[in-house]
Amino acid sequence: MAKKQIEVNCDMGEGFGRWKMGPDEELMKFIDVANVACGFHAGDPSIMLRTVRLAKQHVIRVGAHPGFPDLFGFGRRRMEIDPEDMYALMLYQVGALVGILEAEGMKLNHIKPHGQLYFYVHRDEEIRDAVVRAVSKFDVPLYGLPHDTMKEVCSKYGVTLVHEFYPDIQYDATGHLAPVKGEQANGKVVGERLANFVRDGHVTTPDGARVDLGFGDVSKASFSICVHSDFPAALENAAAVRSVVDRLFN
Amino acid sequence: MAKKQIEVNCDMGEGFGRWKMGPDEELMKFIDVANVACGFHAGDPSIMLRTVRLAKQHVIRVGAHPGFPDLFGFGRRRMEIDPEDMYALMLYQVGALVGILEAEGMKLNHIKPHGQLYFYVHRDEEIRDAVVRAVSKFDVPLYGLPHDTMKEVCSKYGVTLVHEFYPDIQYDATGHLAPVKGEQANGKVVGERLANFVRDGHVTTPDGARVDLGFGDVSKASFSICVHSDFPAALENAAAVRSVVDRLFN
Amino acid sequence: MAKKQIEVNCDMGEGFGRWKMGPDEELMKFIDVANVACGFHAGDPSIMLRTVRLAKQHVIRVGAHPGFPDLFGFGRRRMEIDPEDMYALMLYQVGALVGILEAEGMKLNHIKPHGQLYFYVHRDEEIRDAVVRAVSKFDVPLYGLPHDTMKEVCSKYGVTLVHEFYPDIQYDATGHLAPVKGEQANGKVVGERLANFVRDGHVTTPDGARVDLGFGDVSKASFSICVHSDFPAALENAAAVRSVVDRLFN
Amino acid sequence: MAKKQIEVNCDMGEGFGRWKMGPDEELMKFIDVANVACGFHAGDPSIMLRTVRLAKQHVIRVGAHPGFPDLFGFGRRRMEIDPEDMYALMLYQVGALVGILEAEGMKLNHIKPHGQLYFYVHRDEEIRDAVVRAVSKFDVPLYGLPHDTMKEVCSKYGVTLVHEFYPDIQYDATGHLAPVKGEQANGKVVGERLANFVRDGHVTTPDGARVDLGFGDVSKASFSICVHSDFPAALENAAAVRSVVDRLFN
Repeated sequence: MAKKQIEVNCDMGEGFGRWKMGPDEELMKFIDVANVACGFHAGDPSIMLRTVRLAKQHVIRVGAHPGFPDLFGFGRRRMEIDPEDMYALMLYQVGALVGILEAEGMKLNHIKPHGQLYFYVHRDEEIRDAVVRAVSKFDVPLYGLPHDTMKEVCSKYGVTLVHEFYPDIQYDATGHLAPVKGEQANGKVVGERLANFVRDGHVTTPDGARVDLGFGDVSKASFSICVHSDFPAALENAAAVRSVVDRLFN
Repeated sequence: MAKKQIEVNCDMGEGFGRWKMGPDEELMKFIDVANVACGFHAGDPSIMLRTVRLAKQHVIRVGAHPGFPDLFGFGRRRMEIDPEDMYALMLYQVGALVGILEAEGMKLNHIKPHGQLYFYVHRDEEIRDAVVRAVSKFDVPLYGLPHDTMKEVCSKYGVTLVHEFYPDIQYDATGHLAPVKGEQANGKVVGERLANFVRDGHVTTPDGARVDLGFGDVSKASFSICVHSDFPAALENAAAVRSVVDRLFN
Repeated sequence: MAKKQIEVNCDMGEGFGRWKMGPDEELMKFIDVANVACGFHAGDPSIMLRTVRLAKQHVIRVGAHPGFPDLFGFGRRRMEIDPEDMYALMLYQVGALVGILEAEGMKLNHIKPHGQLYFYVHRDEEIRDAVVRAVSKFDVPLYGLPHDTMKEVCSKYGVTLVHEFYPDIQYDATGHLAPVKGEQANGKVVGERLANFVRDGHVTTPDGARVDLGFGDVSKASFSICVHSDFPAALENAAAVRSVVDRLFN
Repeated sequence: MAKKQIEVNCDMGEGFGRWKMGPDEELMKFIDVANVACGFHAGDPSIMLRTVRLAKQHVIRVGAHPGFPDLFGFGRRRMEIDPEDMYALMLYQVGALVGILEAEGMKLNHIKPHGQLYFYVHRDEEIRDAVVRAVSKFDVPLYGLPHDTMKEVCSKYGVTLVHEFYPDIQYDATGHLAPVKGEQANGKVVGERLANFVRDGHVTTPDGARVDLGFGDVSKASFSICVHSDFPAALENAAAVRSVVDRLFN
């Protein structure tokens, strides 16, 4: 049972034009699901198409990874966005990826907001509502943290929330993710964090606090494990996570 | 019969952010079909959503109006685009509009390339192929001129070609459209050009040549009449066209 | 003495590509100084060059009007910007305008931040420091409100602060500008607000509070009066302001 | 004499936001002059500032490397640009870099167009005129190929043309550069090409033709040798060129 419900997801297609970001092709063998950037924080239509084809070859499911309109800041900067603009930005970016997926005979698997948009969804009531409302139009799950506020809005709009765990970045004492810095853990640490989390659903913050992340009984819960593709140790981290998942859930 | 098959189409949603272009709302009452800009030559997600809602209120069908990635030049400048990039650009832009339409419970009616992309489709074999291939993925008609080259590629990909007539710009002796300058005819001239065209399917070029536009027997043909929304006399032109259409085909 | 030191300034060149914003040409006859947008919130190199040439014809001095990188939001949205990025953004935008001005044999008159950047300069210590540091490199005055925090940083970097008064938008009780909404006063109201301000340096907030704006003895102070070019009543407002200035200070 | 007049130049600062391109820092030790991207085909204000500071540390002279407005295509795609727009684009980009250089107490050394703009300057009469006219406003040399058409326009506008030789890409039989593909020669080949060129001012095309590049008597001529920073073998190529230059001209 649990076997099928534990998966590894990874952001992909985060280059732009001639600029590259992560080692997408090498990462494909370690993951189950790709979150494909939709052109606003990274990605462009040609990269999206190539990434979708690559995922198809590797029999990887594809979700949309929409972000703030901020190529310079890679979608990692806070910005003021009107909720109705945000709703439109979501429909636009996800629709664009769906157009590409369907041309390849594929279906959208899920939607996972990127960078600051992910943080806003967990922190800002209006943006959360706009994003979940947009997700509901595509009839796919939203990926996010199992916070009560998230569960409530997803329930309001009939959206399934897939709970995510991040073994390659830190959490704070409230169960939110610490800002992404890039100077991240290596494969060994990442594998240990995942193994620890799987034991009882807790993580330890940089200050040493133990925090229950809200997954409930981890031994029975389904969840998705996210690995960053733009960290220096991305391949090592993904390999470590894959290894732990295969060992524990097979 | 013919009554239902003669329609008036118009480009819409061609502002960007706080900048406006045509008088979209006033034009709605004169047209049957709106070609909505998709964010690359004009338009942004919020304008697209507002334009789609406006069309919905006016019971106007909506098609996609994708263009070159050129906000500065409004998609009216030639640029080198790799055909595979063009294919991806089409899927992206049209998919984005479909995402917005479906959120509003609407369906995509057709695809009509904008500006230089429209010219490339009629002139450049590789771009034509890429564009028609992309259109085929959305299973809607392509709007364009009834040239043999267009008919052939549409036939190859199983795409319906809706023949367009332009009463507000000039044609050249080969039946191609002259470049859009903006200094265009007024309502009276536009109405007359349309009435003349409807008589026998010919137009007169600026040099006085009579050209058969390839519509066949106009009295039996279905076609779509395009009115530009960004011309100074846009409202007057649209009113004149509507009036001729209602008089001749009702 | 005072006569020469009261001037009217106005934002200009705030279109983009084929999109227009204010009635720049008509406004030129009412103003002394143009703040030219530098391409990040509005403007493009060609509009900048045309605006500079227009100002030259009308013997209007030209300052730089740099903004946040936000064409969609017209630079009126808050966004997180690293102070060092802000410093670089300032040098880039102002330098670009200087390149155009010098090609026309003109000199940069001043620097005036646009929209939210203007608000950040008055509100955010780090951004203020970065902006004033950048201004100091061009050896021209900064336009802004006569707040103590502004005076201090300008003094630190040896920058002259030209005090601005805004007769076409509201102030709050702390002497800051209320957010720009666009639904603004007409010429009559704007003229009266200016005449009232000139009497004793106070304004009345929407709540009826009287606020001293910090200009000191207005009868002796030099200042610059800003008129928005993108308000519906821009021409009327500018004419009213010009008229009051000519009557009171000539 | 000749010693000082042979130099190595290299394009730098061609990342964007979080995306990197060449190994700028490592390349600095091999070159004399950096051509810094100005934000239109690559580069952003922060990268420009960092690159200028890096050059300053290494006592490298800095020139402007303006390009077409085409981040997606890295300025390597043909596009239709009105010559007056091109003139404005040049003033804007170069002015922006000058703003950054002067803030660092440095002077602009030269201007070298990037990618397709470089090709247009050598091939298109109107764009060449617009570009050289813009260069003349900054009173620095233009870098380019020693073609007669180039010499004529530079002479018309009083601009010095610094003759460039490219050892890491191919020439065609007319002495123009072949399009950049990226799959380029390695250090050994590049060093040999340079050594061969220095012998008699000729190169051999891929078809085996020997072409006189127009440098005149190479033993007496001054020229600048360009090395691409975005080729896989960039460091190796730069090292090889530096080595040949130091051996032959010291």
